[in-house]
Amino acid sequence: MSEEMRKKRVAVIGGGLVGALNACYFSRRKYKVDVYEMRSDIRKVEVVRGRSINLALSVRGREALKMVEMEEEVINKGIRMYSRMIHDRDGTLRIIPYGRKDQYIMSVDRRHLNEVLLTAAEKNPDITVHFEHKLVNCDFNTGEIVLKRSDGTIVKDVVDAIIGCDGAFSAVRNQIMKNTLFNYQQEYIPHGYMELNMPPTASDEFAMAINHLHIWARNEYMMIALPNQDKSFTLTLFMPFNIFDSIKTEDDLMNFFHKNFQDSIPLIGEKELKQMFFKSKAFPLISIKCSPYHIGNKALIMGDAAHASVPFYGQGMNCGFEDCLVLNDLLDKHRDDIGAAFEEYTKVRTIDAQAICDLSMYNYIEMRQSVNSCLFLLRKKVDNFLSWLFPRNWIPLYAMVAFTRTRYHECILKRQWQDKVR
Amino acid sequence: MSEEMRKKRVAVIGGGLVGALNACYFSRRKYKVDVYEMRSDIRKVEVVRGRSINLALSVRGREALKMVEMEEEVINKGIRMYSRMIHDRDGTLRIIPYGRKDQYIMSVDRRHLNEVLLTAAEKNPDITVHFEHKLVNCDFNTGEIVLKRSDGTIVKDVVDAIIGCDGAFSAVRNQIMKNTLFNYQQEYIPHGYMELNMPPTASDEFAMAINHLHIWARNEYMMIALPNQDKSFTLTLFMPFNIFDSIKTEDDLMNFFHKNFQDSIPLIGEKELKQMFFKSKAFPLISIKCSPYHIGNKALIMGDAAHASVPFYGQGMNCGFEDCLVLNDLLDKHRDDIGAAFEEYTKVRTIDAQAICDLSMYNYIEMRQSVNSCLFLLRKKVDNFLSWLFPRNWIPLYAMVAFTRTRYHECILKRQWQDKVR
Repeated sequence: MSEEMRKKRVAVIGGGLVGALNACYFSRRKYKVDVYEMRSDIRKVEVVRGRSINLALSVRGREALKMVEMEEEVINKGIRMYSRMIHDRDGTLRIIPYGRKDQYIMSVDRRHLNEVLLTAAEKNPDITVHFEHKLVNCDFNTGEIVLKRSDGTIVKDVVDAIIGCDGAFSAVRNQIMKNTLFNYQQEYIPHGYMELNMPPTASDEFAMAINHLHIWARNEYMMIALPNQDKSFTLTLFMPFNIFDSIKTEDDLMNFFHKNFQDSIPLIGEKELKQMFFKSKAFPLISIKCSPYHIGNKALIMGDAAHASVPFYGQGMNCGFEDCLVLNDLLDKHRDDIGAAFEEYTKVRTIDAQAICDLSMYNYIEMRQSVNSCLFLLRKKVDNFLSWLFPRNWIPLYAMVAFTRTRYHECILKRQWQDKVR
Repeated sequence: MSEEMRKKRVAVIGGGLVGALNACYFSRRKYKVDVYEMRSDIRKVEVVRGRSINLALSVRGREALKMVEMEEEVINKGIRMYSRMIHDRDGTLRIIPYGRKDQYIMSVDRRHLNEVLLTAAEKNPDITVHFEHKLVNCDFNTGEIVLKRSDGTIVKDVVDAIIGCDGAFSAVRNQIMKNTLFNYQQEYIPHGYMELNMPPTASDEFAMAINHLHIWARNEYMMIALPNQDKSFTLTLFMPFNIFDSIKTEDDLMNFFHKNFQDSIPLIGEKELKQMFFKSKAFPLISIKCSPYHIGNKALIMGDAAHASVPFYGQGMNCGFEDCLVLNDLLDKHRDDIGAAFEEYTKVRTIDAQAICDLSMYNYIEMRQSVNSCLFLLRKKVDNFLSWLFPRNWIPLYAMVAFTRTRYHECILKRQWQDKVR
């Protein structure tokens, strides 16, 4: 086989959402792809720990799926959410739309989405997915990668490019950090999250109105619920770790829920709530920024490996999927000159990824500040929390982020401009 | 030996300036100390690479040395610097004092200082210094440390506390980062630094006025010179790496020096300048912030391991030495309850260390901004650079930082207050 004919070989480290999608993108470009995933095949395990159960898919993610003809398959199993449904303390419900009447975000099951993407990837003869392969080392001069199998054996390979889609605790990024002048920032916030389940009713219906993202906003605490295909809801409780820790007994828990999330108790079931809460644990939330994303023409990090954000803007997966689209466009532009594409990727994508990290953290900080500076307002009937979460004048920004592909940093700039001319 | 009588054991990781001083502090408190240094004994090697040659010692550092009766020995070998000596492009010299007439900072030799501290430490029967021992692992529950000797053999030990004084690329900090929720930020700036030497004159005198810190301020470039005991000066050249890289030939170098640092050429010697420049390389400059500094009562990071700063405020060593003093005061206060002292150390010291990192970076950014936004001013005879480096109204802040032990963050607060009432 002549050198011209030789397919370029890419190792995608990480077989999660962004890694699996990215493999499809590279194979579409006629690269030979090996995906190395540290964990077992998600399609064969029963319980997956430490990752959220469902996610909100919006336009950026959908556009990225569309390009590899995966959009239909994914949204057929998703549930439309046209608005937030706000649950006040007294049980009052209020609806705040996400955008125009026809605009919605979608609740999708992370596991299902990951499985669909892996199966699509494996259908392609140019993609091989290796599970239980942990990256141990990589050489950014030669493209050599060293992996350790779960049985302890070592595998080595040499590839044209190493793509790190291995999440917030990326092994590829750690290797980059050891080898180059790399700017890096990680920040844990005082809040953790815990997932709970709200089952279907006795008559096998959704326990709450279906086409909404449900929100219980309680200043320092927050609970949200997204609908699932099986007619259950997945609840996510956000609270400072010290509040989680302070709930030691079943009575503590029920007092806390009665005070804050009263209307959810009969829908979850008191017994089930107690079981789930004390069986589960709260997971931390991390925000990560770094730069550059690439090393020469040998390595690139994408998705959470490059820009993990706190989940308060619902863009983590969407941003990671859009990464694949952006890289694909740049490989088009540079006619698969990997080095040139990687270099421009860092140049254009850093500012956007950092913008969405900032927006997500901004929402979180706003919440914290309003709490700390306005303690006297805590008992106000209409919760102040809402003023940061959904002020009217923020809706255009949210819609720009969720329903367009306007670059993230331009969303912020446009919003600042709107403020000025108003 | 009864439990009450058993001396507490501390492992200090790193035998550099802060590590060696810290060992003296702990032994003074009747702890048994093992210092583990990755490199060879600095007293036995000829050339030490990648660390600055001389440093500016000011009040914080001196106070820390005084407490362990090391101040006299150190300052006897130091050279007083009462002012900056500004070298304009045309050779004009101007003096800007650091403070009052009797206030000065001191040029000290890093290597000599390190040697003196190690020798002082080793005189104490409760301190053992182990060279060529690299930290491989530590267990923050049990206090077990695992080290690798340069011959490849492994040493294990269990101690009451692990103190990481192992510099900007701290192995202890990396272990903490792997094991806990740790906020961390590292940033490389576009400037690198290179050290050059200005020898004594033919008649064995200092080539420039002695009791000053000499500064050639050229917007994007800067050179400084500190006097040494042997009547030479150590010059440090700060420039963006791309400028270093652009100087490829001896002609490039001489053109650059003639244009920017004309008056230094005959003092360095043209031949020597060429030799040194092309034999040396530019080193990067990193700024590091993190939190927390401790894990329970088992580990604490201090000095550059906890807060590396860019060198534009001359406080790196002083801050690291003051760390030892602060911890010592807290161990007094808490009667050697290590856990309580560590916890309060993180609480009080984080804000001060971050303040000096910010001040250092602020000076650097000011320089960069004035350059970028005012390109047309580049040729102005009186260099704008000075307006950030030494505006009159900054002198009180500088003096507070260099000549008092006012907490760093309070220096900034007081300065902001001065601005308001003016």
